[in-house]
Amino acid sequence: MEAFKIVKKIPGPKLDVKHGIIDLSHGAGGRATARLVEQLFEVEFDNALIKQHNDAACFSLSSGRYVMTCDAHVISPLFFPGGDIGCLSVYGTVNDLAMMGAKPLYLTAAFILEEGFAFSDLKRIVQSMAKAARRAQVVIVAGDTKVVEKGKGDGVFITTTGVGIVPEGVDISGDKAQTGDDVIVNGYIGDHGIAIMSHRENIQFDTTLLSDTAPLNDLVAKMTEAVPKLHCLRDPTRGGLATTLNELAKQSNVGFMIDENKIPVREEVTSACELLGLDPLYVANEGKLVAICPSEFTETLLTVMRNHPLGKEAAVIGKVIADSKEFVQLKTKFGGMRIVDWLTGEQLPRIC
Amino acid sequence: MEAFKIVKKIPGPKLDVKHGIIDLSHGAGGRATARLVEQLFEVEFDNALIKQHNDAACFSLSSGRYVMTCDAHVISPLFFPGGDIGCLSVYGTVNDLAMMGAKPLYLTAAFILEEGFAFSDLKRIVQSMAKAARRAQVVIVAGDTKVVEKGKGDGVFITTTGVGIVPEGVDISGDKAQTGDDVIVNGYIGDHGIAIMSHRENIQFDTTLLSDTAPLNDLVAKMTEAVPKLHCLRDPTRGGLATTLNELAKQSNVGFMIDENKIPVREEVTSACELLGLDPLYVANEGKLVAICPSEFTETLLTVMRNHPLGKEAAVIGKVIADSKEFVQLKTKFGGMRIVDWLTGEQLPRIC
Repeated sequence: MEAFKIVKKIPGPKLDVKHGIIDLSHGAGGRATARLVEQLFEVEFDNALIKQHNDAACFSLSSGRYVMTCDAHVISPLFFPGGDIGCLSVYGTVNDLAMMGAKPLYLTAAFILEEGFAFSDLKRIVQSMAKAARRAQVVIVAGDTKVVEKGKGDGVFITTTGVGIVPEGVDISGDKAQTGDDVIVNGYIGDHGIAIMSHRENIQFDTTLLSDTAPLNDLVAKMTEAVPKLHCLRDPTRGGLATTLNELAKQSNVGFMIDENKIPVREEVTSACELLGLDPLYVANEGKLVAICPSEFTETLLTVMRNHPLGKEAAVIGKVIADSKEFVQLKTKFGGMRIVDWLTGEQLPRIC
Repeated sequence: MEAFKIVKKIPGPKLDVKHGIIDLSHGAGGRATARLVEQLFEVEFDNALIKQHNDAACFSLSSGRYVMTCDAHVISPLFFPGGDIGCLSVYGTVNDLAMMGAKPLYLTAAFILEEGFAFSDLKRIVQSMAKAARRAQVVIVAGDTKVVEKGKGDGVFITTTGVGIVPEGVDISGDKAQTGDDVIVNGYIGDHGIAIMSHRENIQFDTTLLSDTAPLNDLVAKMTEAVPKLHCLRDPTRGGLATTLNELAKQSNVGFMIDENKIPVREEVTSACELLGLDPLYVANEGKLVAICPSEFTETLLTVMRNHPLGKEAAVIGKVIADSKEFVQLKTKFGGMRIVDWLTGEQLPRIC
C-alpha cells in the first residue's frame, strides 16, 4: 500500500505560456500532453465537440452530399504580413471545401511540433486558428499533437482536414468547363506569394503588401445562391493562376484564352515580381478563386461578387475555348500571344 | 505566336521510382506534384473518389451520427518489425473511429516529405497504406503533399483523418464507465512499443517481436453487435494501458482495480522492459483496446472477442470501482498494491 503515499495525483502546474517551450513529453500522450491540450488547445478552440474527450468527435449529419479534404501547412516564416500558419491552415481547408460549392462544417487539426518551440508562439498560432474558425463559421472538433526532436521539424506543421455539405442543386466540378464559359477571378493575383517572398527577401514597399489569406466560403455561398449553375471553382494557391487554369483545362478537356490586361495585379506585386524574377501568374494566392461561369450568368455573378468584401475587384479575365490540346493561351499586355504552361520546378518553396 | 513552338506540352517522363528522390518541386503544386500524385498516390490508392481531381472528394451520406478524428504520425524508424508508418497511419485513425463504436468510412492522408526522401521508400509506404486501407475497408479519398528542405523534416510525416458512422443503438463514450463494470483487453500489452524500442536499441530476441499494429474496426463491429450496451472502448496507444485507464477514470469519475497477474504480457516484452527500464503498462500498443463492459455481458463479449483473430487472448484484467479520487489501483504480481499514475515525461519518443 506504500504507493499511495509515494505517487502523487496532482493535476500539475499551469503551463508557463510566456516562457515555456515544447519538449518531447508534450508528444508522449501522458500528463504533459493532456495538460497542453486542456490548457491551450481546448481553451482557445472552446466548443462542446472538442471537449468530449473521446478518441473522435461525434456529431449528427442529415443525409446529403458531403465533401472532405485535407491540407498540410508548412509555410515559412510562421508569421507573415497579413497572417500566420494558424489562420492559413483554417482558410486553406475551408477554401478547398468551398471550391466544391460546399458549406464547410467541421475541421480537425494535427500539430507536428519541434522540440524547443515556444508556447507563446504556439498560443498565438492557436488563437489565430480559433479566430479564423469563428470567421469562417467552422468548428474545430478534434486534434492531435506530436513532437519531434530539435532539427527534425521546423517549429510547427499543421494539417487540417475538413468536412462540408453541398447545398441541393449545386454541382461544381473541375471537369465542367464548357466552350464559351467566362473565366472570372475575385480580385488581385499574387498577393500571398509576394507578401511571403518580400518578407523573406526583406523587400520594402511604400505600403505593406499583405497576404490575401481569407475564407472564401461566404463569397461562394452568395455566388452559388445567385448562380446555382456555376460550372467550376478553384483557388489558385501553390502554382498560381497558371497552374489552376492548366488543371481545369486538363480536367474539362478544353483550352483557355486569357487576356493579361484584364488580370488584376497590384503594382507592388508587378514590381516585386520583376525584381525577384517571378511571373505573377505562378505566384500563390490564399484568398482568391477562379470561377468558370456560363456566359448568360456572368453579369449576375459579377454583381454578387462585387458586392462582397472579398470580391470587390472581381473581373472577367478570359474565355473557355475548344482545344483538344488543352492549352492555356495568354494575350499578353504587348499584344503578343503565348502559352502558359504548368508551373515547373519550385520557384517559391514552402509558400503554404 | 512564337511561344507555341518554344513551350512544349509534354506530360513529362515517368517517375523513376527506383532511383528518384523527392525535391522541392514535388511540393510546389505544379507539374512535378501532379506527376507524383498521378503516378504514385493515385495508382496505389486507386479508387473513384481520389480520381475526381477536385479540391475535395465528394460522396453521399445518409443521416445519422458520425465521428471524425485525426492523427499525425511521426514514428521513427519508418519501417519496423511488423509494420511501417504507412499501415500505422491508416490503422491509427481507423482505430480511433472504432473506439467510438463507429464503422470507419473515409480517410484523408497528408504527407510532409523531406527533400531527398527516396521515391522507393515512399512507394513502399504508400503501398502499405493502400493495403491497410483495403484490410480495414476504408477508402482514402483525398490527400496532400508538401515538401520541406533537407534537415527541416525527417523522411516523411503522415497525418490521416477519418470519418465513420456510428451504428444505431451504439453509444460508446469514455464517460460511461460504471462501478462494477469489467475491464477487458483484447490481448498482449506492449508489443508495439517494445518492437520499436528493441529495433532502435538493437535488442535481439529468440523470436522476432512484432508491432501489433492492426485495424480493430472489425473486432469492434462484432463486439458491439453482440453487446450494444458496451460502455467504453479506448486504444492504449501513446502512454500505454496506464494512461488510458487514467483517462477513462477521469472522464467517468471512477476508479479502477486492476490485477497485474491478469494482464497479458509476452515474456519477451517483460524481459525487454526490465532491460530498458520500462514498465509495460506505459508502453504503446497499436492493435489493442480496453473495453469497459457491464458485468452481465462480459461472458458474451469475451466469447465474441476470443473468436476473432485480434481477440484470441482477450482477458478480464480488473473492475471499475467507486473512487472520487479517480485512482487506478494495481494488485501487483507480488501481492502488493500500488497506484498507477499517468505517464509523466517521455519514455518512448516518436513511437507513433
